[in-house]
Amino acid sequence: MRIVIHDADAQAYQRLLQAAFPDAEVLTYERAGAVPADYLAVFRPPEALLAAQGPSLKAILNLGAGVDALLDSPALPKAVPVVKLRDAGMAPLMLDYVLYALLHFSRDFDLYARQSREARWQLHLPQSRAAWPVGVLGLGAIGAQVAQGLARHGFTVCAHSRSPKRLEGVECLHGDEGFDQLLARSRVLVNILPSTPATQGLLNRDTLSRLPQGAVLINPGRGTAVVLDELVELLDAGHLRGAALDVFPVEPLPPESPLWHHPKLLITPHAAAPTPVEEAARQLIDTIHAFERGEAPPSVDAGAGY
Amino acid sequence: MRIVIHDADAQAYQRLLQAAFPDAEVLTYERAGAVPADYLAVFRPPEALLAAQGPSLKAILNLGAGVDALLDSPALPKAVPVVKLRDAGMAPLMLDYVLYALLHFSRDFDLYARQSREARWQLHLPQSRAAWPVGVLGLGAIGAQVAQGLARHGFTVCAHSRSPKRLEGVECLHGDEGFDQLLARSRVLVNILPSTPATQGLLNRDTLSRLPQGAVLINPGRGTAVVLDELVELLDAGHLRGAALDVFPVEPLPPESPLWHHPKLLITPHAAAPTPVEEAARQLIDTIHAFERGEAPPSVDAGAGY
Ligand SMILES: NC(=O)c1ccc[n+]([C@@H]2O[C@H](COP(=O)([O-])OP(=O)(O)OC[C@H]3O[C@@H](n4cnc5c(N)ncnc54)[C@H](OP(=O)(O)O)[C@@H]3O)[C@@H](O)[C@H]2O)c1
Ligand SMILES: NC(=O)c1ccc[n+]([C@@H]2O[C@H](COP(=O)([O-])OP(=O)(O)OC[C@H]3O[C@@H](n4cnc5c(N)ncnc54)[C@H](OP(=O)(O)O)[C@@H]3O)[C@@H](O)[C@H]2O)c1
Repeated sequence: MRIVIHDADAQAYQRLLQAAFPDAEVLTYERAGAVPADYLAVFRPPEALLAAQGPSLKAILNLGAGVDALLDSPALPKAVPVVKLRDAGMAPLMLDYVLYALLHFSRDFDLYARQSREARWQLHLPQSRAAWPVGVLGLGAIGAQVAQGLARHGFTVCAHSRSPKRLEGVECLHGDEGFDQLLARSRVLVNILPSTPATQGLLNRDTLSRLPQGAVLINPGRGTAVVLDELVELLDAGHLRGAALDVFPVEPLPPESPLWHHPKLLITPHAAAPTPVEEAARQLIDTIHAFERGEAPPSVDAGAGY
Repeated sequence: MRIVIHDADAQAYQRLLQAAFPDAEVLTYERAGAVPADYLAVFRPPEALLAAQGPSLKAILNLGAGVDALLDSPALPKAVPVVKLRDAGMAPLMLDYVLYALLHFSRDFDLYARQSREARWQLHLPQSRAAWPVGVLGLGAIGAQVAQGLARHGFTVCAHSRSPKRLEGVECLHGDEGFDQLLARSRVLVNILPSTPATQGLLNRDTLSRLPQGAVLINPGRGTAVVLDELVELLDAGHLRGAALDVFPVEPLPPESPLWHHPKLLITPHAAAPTPVEEAARQLIDTIHAFERGEAPPSVDAGAGY
């Protein structure tokens, strides 16, 4: 059995997988190049690696929750199952990111940062949690835990997914009507949707302007969801108070982008929930064992795009 | 019975107290001036109001947790009990403030803010909670809840108070030896001590340099605890990574203070835990009822200063 790894953390994965499969040939793409494999364990793999695959390939294991880059690759072998990580320690990291951004705006740290630049001492009395209802888009392995985590922190949370869901402490909505309800109610909109044909450009002038006056957007999902020019328009017009953006249509965000310096934006470099290697490796190992036993672990629906 | 109120929220307190004591004369200092009363409900009262009090005064109710400004007032009638607020909804606000500041540094939002100013995209991998042990100074009505709240968030928390304590999930230390242990272990030092003769200047070159390299200070307690010049030295020398300061020896922090623009400081205008008026009013009402029944509610120890 040969496993080829492509990831910023490839060497750590190699060590962990080699220990779990002592008889296998576990290689990094960096060392081995574009060779055929039984399993690929990859994040944003180069075309050449995908193109080099032959009939031995049993599965592609995606070293993150988002499979958009992989599915977009023209060299992706269509018949081979793609398995993504399910949480793998990303959910608690994502919850921290969202909580930080939520407190940043709801406790006026955005205003205090601006006041500091002007050396201006001015208190803003905190509003209760009830004044900051949250809407979460996406109730997957990560989104569901973020929604429930925010509810445990005392926030009123509603959330939206494609299919109907039930989740303790969270009002679950679905369908177009559910989406409209969520927009109308949410002073904080948190996007944890995957990038798919259906979610690209979803957060635009029309939808964002249906949020209440003074609302904020938190986007640790994918950059393609947001029409950035239209977001900036709504920030500049004062309809939206601010936004925390962790992901962008083009990453890295180019140094010449004016977004870096927009006073109402909190910008981070795709840092919300980097995959924790050890937990991810444990999932990879379980998944490979399952395939080797002849099972078919849950895999990505290429048609739906996630 | 006459109650005189001095506070930024005096009118709201007046309405709530008048409703609870319909037969009493409930006055704001703004309207009534320096008149004698049965009860004063005050925060940082003017000397004249204290000086005007006579034998009818049964208690001074402090509209906050910190009684330093009141006890420092030369006109304070010494024989009259001072009752401070116990939590009254401030603890959850304080926990949010501390959690935000903790995430600000431990999740590298401080670095990302600097990188944004330079339009620089660079990821810092998050370290686990275990890499960020927290030490809380002060285990009072607010400090105990903050310490336990941080422990519930998965942080390793030790805490220090004057007298020995036991608290689920928190390692409780006391005495000089306990203080030394806490400093040596804490990558995050949170000060929630009152300002007293014993706590003034406690956080200085000597004590702060005993924190581990790269530690951070979070101070929502009182500004007098910190020797600011020495803190800035340790920040500039790189021993400390940053500090979140909500309180200052002189407030408002003057516009000409260089602290406003120090790149490693997060500055807020005494905003960590403003007293929630309704909960505070409920406590005032209970306290006045207790005095009227002839009881002696727990009051401030002027010798200890809190
Ligand atoms: N910034 C970062 O560091 C970072 C880290 C990790 C992940 N992420 C992003 O977070 C995303 C979510 O991760 P996850 O593991 O929670 O994904 P997941 O388990 O695949 O869940 C996706 C969720 O989105 C919902 N959804 C998909 N298309 C939809 C549509 N058109 N309308 C409404 N709901 C839709 C799904 O609904 P159903 O439940 O009905 O299928 C599901 O609840 C990833 O795809 C990735 O883009 C970012
Ligand atoms: N920034 C803001 O918005 C804001 C809002 C509210 C309060 N505060 C500050 O927070 C402070 C704490 O409030 P609180 O209600 O928790 O006060 P508290 O109930 O009076 O408790 C004070 C705590 O500090 C400990 N302590 C006092 N002197 C000490 C010393 N020399 N060494 C070690 N421990 C000492 C006490 O120990 P024992 O338990 O052994 O007595 C107690 O645990 C207030 O005094 C105020 O300055 C700030």
